[in-house]
Amino acid sequence: MKIVLDAMGGDHGVQPIVEGLICALKHKEFSPIIVGESAEIQKFIPQDLRSKIQVIHCSDYIQMHELASSATKRKESSIYIGMELVRNGEADAIVSAGHSGATMSLATLRLGRINGVSRPAICTMMPTSIEGKYSLILDAGANTDCKPEYLVDFALMGYEYAKSVMGTANPKVGLLSNGEEDIKGNELTKETFSLLKEYGFFIGNVEGKNIFDGSVDVVVCDGFVGNLVLKSSEGVASAISKILKQEIKKSVFFMLGAFLMRKVFRALKARTDHSEYGGAPLLGVNKTVIISHGSSNARAIECAIYQAIHALEANVCDKIKELKS
Amino acid sequence: MKIVLDAMGGDHGVQPIVEGLICALKHKEFSPIIVGESAEIQKFIPQDLRSKIQVIHCSDYIQMHELASSATKRKESSIYIGMELVRNGEADAIVSAGHSGATMSLATLRLGRINGVSRPAICTMMPTSIEGKYSLILDAGANTDCKPEYLVDFALMGYEYAKSVMGTANPKVGLLSNGEEDIKGNELTKETFSLLKEYGFFIGNVEGKNIFDGSVDVVVCDGFVGNLVLKSSEGVASAISKILKQEIKKSVFFMLGAFLMRKVFRALKARTDHSEYGGAPLLGVNKTVIISHGSSNARAIECAIYQAIHALEANVCDKIKELKS
Repeated sequence: MKIVLDAMGGDHGVQPIVEGLICALKHKEFSPIIVGESAEIQKFIPQDLRSKIQVIHCSDYIQMHELASSATKRKESSIYIGMELVRNGEADAIVSAGHSGATMSLATLRLGRINGVSRPAICTMMPTSIEGKYSLILDAGANTDCKPEYLVDFALMGYEYAKSVMGTANPKVGLLSNGEEDIKGNELTKETFSLLKEYGFFIGNVEGKNIFDGSVDVVVCDGFVGNLVLKSSEGVASAISKILKQEIKKSVFFMLGAFLMRKVFRALKARTDHSEYGGAPLLGVNKTVIISHGSSNARAIECAIYQAIHALEANVCDKIKELKS
Repeated sequence: MKIVLDAMGGDHGVQPIVEGLICALKHKEFSPIIVGESAEIQKFIPQDLRSKIQVIHCSDYIQMHELASSATKRKESSIYIGMELVRNGEADAIVSAGHSGATMSLATLRLGRINGVSRPAICTMMPTSIEGKYSLILDAGANTDCKPEYLVDFALMGYEYAKSVMGTANPKVGLLSNGEEDIKGNELTKETFSLLKEYGFFIGNVEGKNIFDGSVDVVVCDGFVGNLVLKSSEGVASAISKILKQEIKKSVFFMLGAFLMRKVFRALKARTDHSEYGGAPLLGVNKTVIISHGSSNARAIECAIYQAIHALEANVCDKIKELKS
């Protein structure tokens, strides 16, 4: 199993990428290829691992302010080189914390969409209040303007991912809407609803709160809405954390209480921190592509590599191909 | 100042409505008219307040499962009777925790849209991590499918509300989008962006997280997105609270810590609980209409009454009329 890591373009440089890889190598059997500034990368690889990690030198990368469309012309960039390795069969999967638009656009154009899939979608894991249970939301940002048939494909791909990669028996798929009743929705979701109701896995409209209460396994929406829900949720969690810190500082008793509860806060972080899920698979392209947050730490990269491995082991690309054939 | 309370259709019956009214009467000078099941209402009014509160008996109301459009035909319903009192000038404002679709539809049809306003919008207060600072989001659910000109009206109305009711000097208005860059957005927001950039108060695109970080005063979006963001945010807050409770139960030290921190959690609740903002004004109709959550407790009703009073004192309907004339 060969996995390419794009070491460039992350917010914190190559260090967390290499460190995440080293952690992953301790727990899983795979052959890594890392593309990026070679001298920088080598600094973080211990002597005994140098033979295990193939480094391909590349100093160019797509910067955050650049247009995603420029990626297809930048053949010397780390993401282009990495993607070509997957395209040529020299690697099985790619993980990148660089410019996500560039990754999506290269994955779609160079690896190709799976036949019959209208649009690839980013599939993100969300924590729920039930311990050990996550929901999937897709599209989390690849497609801002969608048609009903795209959302139907998202539902099918999310269902397959939940079943084969997450191991959920009979995943329940819901359509994100402004109310649970069948008549609720905007023009896009109402039309999508009428198409999805043919599928046994479809449980109908779900509301924003259901993403986090464990009542649904896969939540389908367009990429604009998915992005807003994701960023708003992160915003709420961050605001709550800031408010708690402000309030705790107001008394030594509160500080003592917080000290006693520190493991509770650590557990909360572990259960809700996106580092723990790693990245988000781009579903609907011919190969396994994992898109990580630009701000990924080593743990997030390590988990993103596990995600790539799980997706390969579960053969999810082939299963989506079968679904659509 | 005469304020109508629709006592019917709330999730918890007439009790929280009457109790909220009684609390409000202790702090503010106004004349209440309460419409609903008279015998039930009287039970909760102390003897000494009976002369201050006008009760109009009515036992019919629009139930949650009914269509909003049925409200216009149900002239015997509490919300219809209440709305007519405002329409006829017998009252200045109305507060309802009943069927919100019915309230919106009656407000629009019986009180009428302000000349030049394309669509009325629900304007909801959101907590931020800055103490004492709130952001406004509109539309929070009145219009599922919007045109760019609706969103421009939402921006204008939100700006006016922030300035005159919330007392924010020079409110900053942002357009909710999937990225801060000018080029980000879906078809609707991109077109809206090009219209809004003519206005001095417009600070450009904002992301989901900005709703909660205090960096923007008014966040504009369509009602479908607004509803999803609201419900998702409530979902995150509720999931975090559940996870904390689950984790705290795992050790007596954690429980002791939580006991010491109980005032911190109370402060967090006070700063984030929607009861504290009361309800949401429906902006863009000719009179003051406050829509409360069906699950409102007495405190939420009390605050909703204050909102109605603030809106009347600030003369916000007339100010929106001037803006659009």
